[in-house]
Amino acid sequence: MVKSHNPALASPTEELAAANSVPPPALGRRQRRAAETRIRLFRCALQLIAERGFPNVTVEDITEAADVGKGTFFNYFESKDHVLGVLAEIQQSKASESLTLAKDGKQPIQSVLRHLFQRAAEEPGRSPDLARALISSFQASAAVRRIILREMSKGRTMIAQIVAAGQERGEIDARLNAEKVAVQVLQTFMGTVLFWSLHEEPALSVWMEDSFQHFWRAIAVSGKEKES
Amino acid sequence: MVKSHNPALASPTEELAAANSVPPPALGRRQRRAAETRIRLFRCALQLIAERGFPNVTVEDITEAADVGKGTFFNYFESKDHVLGVLAEIQQSKASESLTLAKDGKQPIQSVLRHLFQRAAEEPGRSPDLARALISSFQASAAVRRIILREMSKGRTMIAQIVAAGQERGEIDARLNAEKVAVQVLQTFMGTVLFWSLHEEPALSVWMEDSFQHFWRAIAVSGKEKES
Repeated sequence: MVKSHNPALASPTEELAAANSVPPPALGRRQRRAAETRIRLFRCALQLIAERGFPNVTVEDITEAADVGKGTFFNYFESKDHVLGVLAEIQQSKASESLTLAKDGKQPIQSVLRHLFQRAAEEPGRSPDLARALISSFQASAAVRRIILREMSKGRTMIAQIVAAGQERGEIDARLNAEKVAVQVLQTFMGTVLFWSLHEEPALSVWMEDSFQHFWRAIAVSGKEKES
Repeated sequence: MVKSHNPALASPTEELAAANSVPPPALGRRQRRAAETRIRLFRCALQLIAERGFPNVTVEDITEAADVGKGTFFNYFESKDHVLGVLAEIQQSKASESLTLAKDGKQPIQSVLRHLFQRAAEEPGRSPDLARALISSFQASAAVRRIILREMSKGRTMIAQIVAAGQERGEIDARLNAEKVAVQVLQTFMGTVLFWSLHEEPALSVWMEDSFQHFWRAIAVSGKEKES
């Protein structure tokens, strides 16, 4: 079994629960075990990437750490490059939850977006080493970048829909282009992670709150405009 | 002599001129040559870093590309880690020019900051490879990060003074903490460079303009507030 020496890394089952806080359809035992193995491979990969950097981690290193056969890896992932896709899935499931909340209309969009900034910061916020390794892996190869871009564009589309919901409800300036605002969400998020990973303290959540407040001022309909 | 095969890289003398667009004190021939050698070493290092990544470039690679003896390198830089300090100097000289303009009071602070975003984008905007290599080098070692943080905090202080000047003149919301706004300037800038380096097009200057407009909306005193 994998031994995690890093207390910042949650157990695979915790992560599975967190990644699926919208209740998943009931899974059979075999499917549940498969999902757990996949997340375990992902977690082991992340820890190794944080320690050694993306280019210095092999598939064998990952399967050894996760205590599964090398062949098993390829049941779950096309290549090492695709492991990071799990991170994209986790982030997308959070964006998807936020979009559901936005459509519900029970919470102000400001709260929905603020919560999304914080939830998305959970993964990279586990440790500055991990955040740096993740950002470095973005630079690893054109193949990795293509995967990241494809996944990120799904997140961007969902965020743009959240922004559009905020515009319809008069919370967000209707003159703004929702797609462009979604780009600013991603840039603000990544810039904050990068800057925090250089400073290392206080926690990423603290940096992220400042960044969100700044971000929101740029798009909010001000009190006076609302009156007019 | 160094042969630059990358048309995006300016010649050392052009760069020297650009980095010193506030007229420098007159230099003797020997000093001028020394300054040129230093910039040449920096340019060669950047090109190699863009091609191979920071960890895969040695001092010998750099001196060979710049056509100087290996010992010469250490007349200019304490170590390979310190070469990136030249980039910090170039960026700081741009921030310093902007601060001078802000104190002059002849231009609106909005123009001063907008111009600074664009000027600071010139170096990383030369090529996505270079931008990625620069961001990767941030992650290279704790020693490199210490140098970057020390240099960045000088830039941050100057930007905070520009913001404070904007607050005094009623252009920027006086309730904001100028130091925190300066952090947002750096984060916005770095997030934009990172995001652009994934997308690669259009030019960084186009992405930066969008980011600046978003940034400015977050801090500007709106027309209505000005009236009241």
